[in-house]
Amino acid sequence: MKVIILGGDGFCGWPTALHLSKEGHDVTILDNLSRRSIDDELGTNSLTNIPSIHKRLSTWSNLGNSKIKFINIDIAKELGNLIDVFKEEEPEAIIHFAEQRAAPYSMKSMTHEKYTVHNNVLGTHNVLLAINKMPNKKADLVHLGTMGVYGYDGAEFPIPDGYQNIYIENESGEKIKKEILYPANPGSVYHMTKCIDAQLFQFYNKNYKLKITDLHQGIVWGCNTKETLEHPDLVNRFDYDGDYGTVLNRFLIQASINYPLTVHGTGGQTRAFINIKDTVKCIKLAIENPPSGERVRIANQMAETFSVKHLAERVSNLTGAKIAFVNNPRNELEENELSVKNEVLCNLGWNPIKLDDSGLHEIYSYAKKHVGNINLEMIPATSCWNESKMPGIPTL
Amino acid sequence: MKVIILGGDGFCGWPTALHLSKEGHDVTILDNLSRRSIDDELGTNSLTNIPSIHKRLSTWSNLGNSKIKFINIDIAKELGNLIDVFKEEEPEAIIHFAEQRAAPYSMKSMTHEKYTVHNNVLGTHNVLLAINKMPNKKADLVHLGTMGVYGYDGAEFPIPDGYQNIYIENESGEKIKKEILYPANPGSVYHMTKCIDAQLFQFYNKNYKLKITDLHQGIVWGCNTKETLEHPDLVNRFDYDGDYGTVLNRFLIQASINYPLTVHGTGGQTRAFINIKDTVKCIKLAIENPPSGERVRIANQMAETFSVKHLAERVSNLTGAKIAFVNNPRNELEENELSVKNEVLCNLGWNPIKLDDSGLHEIYSYAKKHVGNINLEMIPATSCWNESKMPGIPTL
Repeated sequence: MKVIILGGDGFCGWPTALHLSKEGHDVTILDNLSRRSIDDELGTNSLTNIPSIHKRLSTWSNLGNSKIKFINIDIAKELGNLIDVFKEEEPEAIIHFAEQRAAPYSMKSMTHEKYTVHNNVLGTHNVLLAINKMPNKKADLVHLGTMGVYGYDGAEFPIPDGYQNIYIENESGEKIKKEILYPANPGSVYHMTKCIDAQLFQFYNKNYKLKITDLHQGIVWGCNTKETLEHPDLVNRFDYDGDYGTVLNRFLIQASINYPLTVHGTGGQTRAFINIKDTVKCIKLAIENPPSGERVRIANQMAETFSVKHLAERVSNLTGAKIAFVNNPRNELEENELSVKNEVLCNLGWNPIKLDDSGLHEIYSYAKKHVGNINLEMIPATSCWNESKMPGIPTL
Repeated sequence: MKVIILGGDGFCGWPTALHLSKEGHDVTILDNLSRRSIDDELGTNSLTNIPSIHKRLSTWSNLGNSKIKFINIDIAKELGNLIDVFKEEEPEAIIHFAEQRAAPYSMKSMTHEKYTVHNNVLGTHNVLLAINKMPNKKADLVHLGTMGVYGYDGAEFPIPDGYQNIYIENESGEKIKKEILYPANPGSVYHMTKCIDAQLFQFYNKNYKLKITDLHQGIVWGCNTKETLEHPDLVNRFDYDGDYGTVLNRFLIQASINYPLTVHGTGGQTRAFINIKDTVKCIKLAIENPPSGERVRIANQMAETFSVKHLAERVSNLTGAKIAFVNNPRNELEENELSVKNEVLCNLGWNPIKLDDSGLHEIYSYAKKHVGNINLEMIPATSCWNESKMPGIPTL
């Protein structure tokens, strides 16, 4: 299948590109390399040494794999070029990872709020406009959403795959059943943009019948996949800083240098998780099993839920690292329950990887090999949700 | 009260500016005059001859009224200038009309879709960012939304003022009560942008406690208010074309030249309506009675509901004009019921003007005085929701 991957140089996009190429798909990556520019802006770095996209791709084909094409394009700014590429390449599926994906980054300042809205909302809208302009068969769109669109304030019911059955009382007191898009409750400007994406998808599906899958992914842990381990040049990025590092990866990296595990608040926040090896499998399932298009297909791309404190304790037990409870820079509930359905993807044949000590140990050992690349100053979360909530830094 | 009106040169903004100035508020208008540029683009015109904003404002103060200041600024593109203006002017209230407001215009082409999303979404986001940057007291925001955010596909229940009580069944079959933002169901890219605005408001209220009122207005009929009739230079714009003309005004103008009243489809579409004289009153009520800020205050700014066919018949009975049923260029239900609550504004003291024959006759006579300005070619709706639905043009 001819596939375009938007944001194919990033943390999820890169291993997906290699996996789909390995599985026989004809892959083209579109990326403006913004994730690398943001590293420059913040002074952050991947724990792993990732070569340029050009080096990555030449190594991939030199190993005997199918050639992956790369086009440098800013989808939020270059609609004309995007239309031309879609027309010329005629992809059957377009996978959209090309969004600024860190909640803390989106909350750093007004400039970062503005950038995140521009980049994500206009980018997604341009993708829809450009698909709509495809002269022959319009490509199916698969988009990386986030579990964060649902918010974390209600745990009386398991969160469904996007659509919720509700009852509304009519004037005679009768409760009438309806189905609605699960109400949006974003916790950051980043999450808000994904809720806005969902609005865009609903309309472009309703009016133009575009076929769209929105994958609400949990927090990713892990780093590499089978394909990214084929050669050191193919290694995936591995973020540990306060903006882009994801919680479980951060704990394992912190443990690798005996830095206290930084738990925000009480750690009672329960979140959904998925291993990076499953991310690439789910994307493959989504493109190979297109939806009917009658409505936007929404799937919760997550394996299981854990509280942040539970994860810290597991990492601590495994590694001996201490836990530091620091102020929570975010506006969120200190404690919440969370139960999530993932029926759509499981019905397509997904069998989620569950967190176990061997999985944790693999990442911990991998982190230990790269401790030389850690810049300690980059570890604390310094982006706060409002001025009154400066995050804490643990005593070292 | 110091008030900034964004989009104060437009159809709702202009009479609001004059009304608030007359009522003792200190008004500054920010506008990029895009509504005038769009007339140039489309070859359309207001039935009334509206002078430049400068002439409008000098006439207003020459009549002995308080001076209204005008600043030409594109709020979607000039965030820095917007911040500076808010800092310098220190408004207590900001009224936001500065959005592309025609559904058919938003659906004319990909370029118009893109423009509408850029202008409306980025404009609204910039307003929120700029309010958040105000160093002292942050201004209250009053935004013109639309009844179209709710959609027209369910009439089992009256539409509440923004927030809907629902029940969700938990795993033991118990129905638990919740309150949600009424699910968005926009019928055009224009309406979609107002649903996105609503998402922006929810987040900026939740995270930064900005005080926001979102007024979901019905379709406006009428043209002038007491203040716009003080002098011919102050007259409001009066649109009759297929993009910007609103349905009842269009019928009355069509009747004034004995053009068949163009009903799309069966005319069974029921919509909410409000007189322009009530628009300005509602805005005054909203700014003079600020919300607590605990959540976004949402109010349905509409007086009553009618089907399009009913309105055509009333205009036909009054004027003798024929009715022409033409193809419906929109994607919408051919027939729907609609019942709407307007408790929030009525509780603030609003007593809505109801449609009656004298009100219709007033607009009809006013239109007749201006028939010399009508360009017949501009009357048919030529913007269609997708390529298969070219709208019809009645036989003349």
